[in-house]
Amino acid sequence: MRIVTLLSDFGSASSYPGEMRGVLLSRCRATVVDITHEIPAQDIAQGAFVLASAAPTFPAGTVHLAVVDPGVGTRRLAIALRSGGQFLVGPDNGLLVPAARALGRAHAVAIDPSRYARRPLSATFHGRDLFAPAAAVLARGVPLEELGPPVTSLVEIDDEQPARRGGDLEGRVLSVDSFGNIITNIPGGWLGELSTDVSIVAAGRSRTARRVRTYADGGRRDLVVLEGSGGAVEIAVPGGRAADRLRLRAGDRVTLRAVTPRRARSAGAEEHPQRKRAE
Amino acid sequence: MRIVTLLSDFGSASSYPGEMRGVLLSRCRATVVDITHEIPAQDIAQGAFVLASAAPTFPAGTVHLAVVDPGVGTRRLAIALRSGGQFLVGPDNGLLVPAARALGRAHAVAIDPSRYARRPLSATFHGRDLFAPAAAVLARGVPLEELGPPVTSLVEIDDEQPARRGGDLEGRVLSVDSFGNIITNIPGGWLGELSTDVSIVAAGRSRTARRVRTYADGGRRDLVVLEGSGGAVEIAVPGGRAADRLRLRAGDRVTLRAVTPRRARSAGAEEHPQRKRAE
Amino acid sequence: MRIVTLLSDFGSASSYPGEMRGVLLSRCRATVVDITHEIPAQDIAQGAFVLASAAPTFPAGTVHLAVVDPGVGTRRLAIALRSGGQFLVGPDNGLLVPAARALGRAHAVAIDPSRYARRPLSATFHGRDLFAPAAAVLARGVPLEELGPPVTSLVEIDDEQPARRGGDLEGRVLSVDSFGNIITNIPGGWLGELSTDVSIVAAGRSRTARRVRTYADGGRRDLVVLEGSGGAVEIAVPGGRAADRLRLRAGDRVTLRAVTPRRARSAGAEEHPQRKRAE
Repeated sequence: MRIVTLLSDFGSASSYPGEMRGVLLSRCRATVVDITHEIPAQDIAQGAFVLASAAPTFPAGTVHLAVVDPGVGTRRLAIALRSGGQFLVGPDNGLLVPAARALGRAHAVAIDPSRYARRPLSATFHGRDLFAPAAAVLARGVPLEELGPPVTSLVEIDDEQPARRGGDLEGRVLSVDSFGNIITNIPGGWLGELSTDVSIVAAGRSRTARRVRTYADGGRRDLVVLEGSGGAVEIAVPGGRAADRLRLRAGDRVTLRAVTPRRARSAGAEEHPQRKRAE
Repeated sequence: MRIVTLLSDFGSASSYPGEMRGVLLSRCRATVVDITHEIPAQDIAQGAFVLASAAPTFPAGTVHLAVVDPGVGTRRLAIALRSGGQFLVGPDNGLLVPAARALGRAHAVAIDPSRYARRPLSATFHGRDLFAPAAAVLARGVPLEELGPPVTSLVEIDDEQPARRGGDLEGRVLSVDSFGNIITNIPGGWLGELSTDVSIVAAGRSRTARRVRTYADGGRRDLVVLEGSGGAVEIAVPGGRAADRLRLRAGDRVTLRAVTPRRARSAGAEEHPQRKRAE
Repeated sequence: MRIVTLLSDFGSASSYPGEMRGVLLSRCRATVVDITHEIPAQDIAQGAFVLASAAPTFPAGTVHLAVVDPGVGTRRLAIALRSGGQFLVGPDNGLLVPAARALGRAHAVAIDPSRYARRPLSATFHGRDLFAPAAAVLARGVPLEELGPPVTSLVEIDDEQPARRGGDLEGRVLSVDSFGNIITNIPGGWLGELSTDVSIVAAGRSRTARRVRTYADGGRRDLVVLEGSGGAVEIAVPGGRAADRLRLRAGDRVTLRAVTPRRARSAGAEEHPQRKRAE
C-alpha cells in the first residue's frame, strides 16, 4: 500500500485537510500521513523548505501532495513530478522544486484537469478537486506520463545561493523552527573554516556565538552556531529562542565571520550594537 | 478496512485525541484519520460546519466520530446515525445534524451505555469511554440498530436560513477559515442575481466588493465576493484576511446588495463608514 | 500490523514530525499515529503526563516513540522499555517513566547507537536518527533485548507526591488542558473525604468551589471540583477557563480543604482575597 503525504497552508483547524483526505481515501487504498497543514498562509518558500526536509526520509513510491497555492483557479499549471523514485503533486509555483532537487533527477508533467479533476471542479480548492485525485491516481500505480503532457520548465522560487566572500559565510534565513532555532541556507560543512567563536552579523548588529556540536554543548542562554539535522548552519539558544533574541525571520540576511583570537570573548556573555562596517 | 474519522474541540496538544485513538485501535482494525481537534472549545456550530464540509468527501462505510460535548455526563443522549451509507457518532446536541443533512436521509439510534461503554464510564470523557467504543462497533460492521433504540427527534442547532429580500441576499457568517476568508450561509448560486460590483453590508457599514471567480482574480488588497469550495458565498481579501478587515466572525449577519452602475467604484479602492439606511 | 505512536515537542508546523514518520515508514510496515507534537518546548514533565495518559488506552504490542529531548547529542542514554505488553522508546530523562508506571512492570535497555542509528547520526535530531529506527525495529517484532544492554536505573522526574495532612488534600498542578481545566496529582478517590463545598487554597488565595460529578453540574461561571477522566482531581469552570481564573499552571501547589457548614456559600458566587492562615 502506497503512502500519500499531505502538506498545506490550510490550517489544521479547518475542514480543508479533512476534505483532501476524504477524496484520497475515496479514490485509492493508501496510507495517508500528514507532513503539516500549518505552513503560514501563502508562504510558498516555507512550504518548499518543509517539504524538501521531510520528503527524502520517505520510501520509494511515496506520493507527496503539497498545496500552498495563492494562484488557485488561474492559469498556473497543476504539475506532477517523479523524482528519486517518489512522486510530487501540486501547483507549478516553486513549491515542489526544492523537494525534487533533494530527491534526485525529476521528470514533470502537467496534470490534465479534463481527465483527472473531481466534478464540479471548484475555482478555489484544487487541493481537493484536482491535486488529490491526481495523487490518488499515482498511488494506484498509474504511470506519471498518463497524467498529462511533459513540462520541461518549472516555475522556481527566487532562492539566492549562499556564498563565501573574504572568509565570511553569507547566506539567508531559510526557516525558524518551533524552538526558535534559526535555520540558514549556509552548508554546515563550511563551518569548519571558521574559528571556534564566530561572529554573527545580521540586522545591522554583530554578536559573538560559540561553535558547538549539539545544543546542550552551550549554556541555556548562550548563542551557539552548529550544523543542524538538515545539514545546514543553525543558530540556536539552547534554553531559549534564537530567532526572538536576534529578531530574525525567514528571508533575512545573515553573515558568519571568524572572530580573531584577541577579540574573542565568552559566547553570548555580552551583546552590543555595532556600527556597520564598510565592506 | 473501514475508516474512522475524528473531530473534536480537545486541542491537539492534549492527551484526549490520543486516548480516543488508543481505544479505537484497541477495539477495531480501522484506518483512523483526524478531521480536526482544533474546533474552538464547546463551539458546537463550528464543529457541525467542519464535519458537514468534510464528511461528504469520504467513502461509504466511513464512521465519523465527533465530540464537542459541553453536556457530557448529563442526560443528553449519545447517538449514532446512518446517513448516505456513512455513519455519525456523537452527542445529541446538534453537532451531527448538518453532516447528516449533507450525507442524505438519516436513521438514528440512542447508544445504550450499559452495553457499549468502556468500564468505568467516566462522567467527563464520553469521547473515550462511550463514543469511541460505539464507533469501533460500527467499524467492525455491526448494524447500527444493535447499538440501541431508534430516536426520531434530534436536537438541532438554531440555524437561521438565508433569504432574498427586495434584491438583497441576507445571511450569516458560518465560519472564518485559516486564511481569514468569510464563509456565509448564502448559496453561491444566488450571486448571479447581483451586479459585478457588490455592496457588502455588515456591522453597520457598507463596502464595495468585486464579484470574482477565484481569489487571484482580485488584487491582493481587494475585497472580493465569490462562490467558495463548499458552494456558499465567500468574502475574501486575496492577500489578506477579510474577517479582520470587516471585523466579522461566525454568527454575524451579512447582506449582499447589487451596486447600481453609477455608484460603482473600483473594488476595495475605498472603504468608508455609512449611516444605516431605513430598510 | 503494529501501531507506532509519536509524541514530541517539535511543533506540528515543523518538518520534524514528518521526518520521523518518513524514517519509520521506510523501515517498517506499521500504523503510525500521532499522540501530539504540541508538548511545550523542552517540557519533559508535560510530555510525560500526556504520554502516561494516552499510552494505557493502546493495545498490546504498541510502540510509543516519545521525544522531548533537551539533552540530545549528549551522553544521556537512549532507552527502550517493555511495559505491560507495550513498548516505549525515547531519551533517558524521565519522559517515559510515568507511562511505564501506568502500563505495568518495566524492563529497560540502552539502545546501542552503533547498531541501530541512521547514518549519518546527527547530533541534534535523535528522534529521526536513533529513536525512530529503534522503534521500527520493535515494530517489526524484534525482541527488546536485542536493542542493547539492560538498564536498571532510569532518570526520573522530580514528582512530589500528593499528601493528606490534617484533613487537607495537598498536591500540585500536573497539567492544564485545552479547556483551561486544572488537572492535579491528587487522587480523585480522596475527594469523598471532603464536604460538598470545598475550599481551594492556591497562590495565596482561598476560593470556594462545589464538588460535582461532571462539568455541566455546575453553572457556566461556577468553580467546580471533580474527579477527571484520568482519575485525578480536576478544578474546572464549566463555561470558562479555571486556570486563567485561578492563575495556576503546571507545577503550582494546590490544597483542597473541607468547608465547615456555617462558612459554606454558593459555589463560585463570590471570590475574595484571603490572608494566609498560619498552618
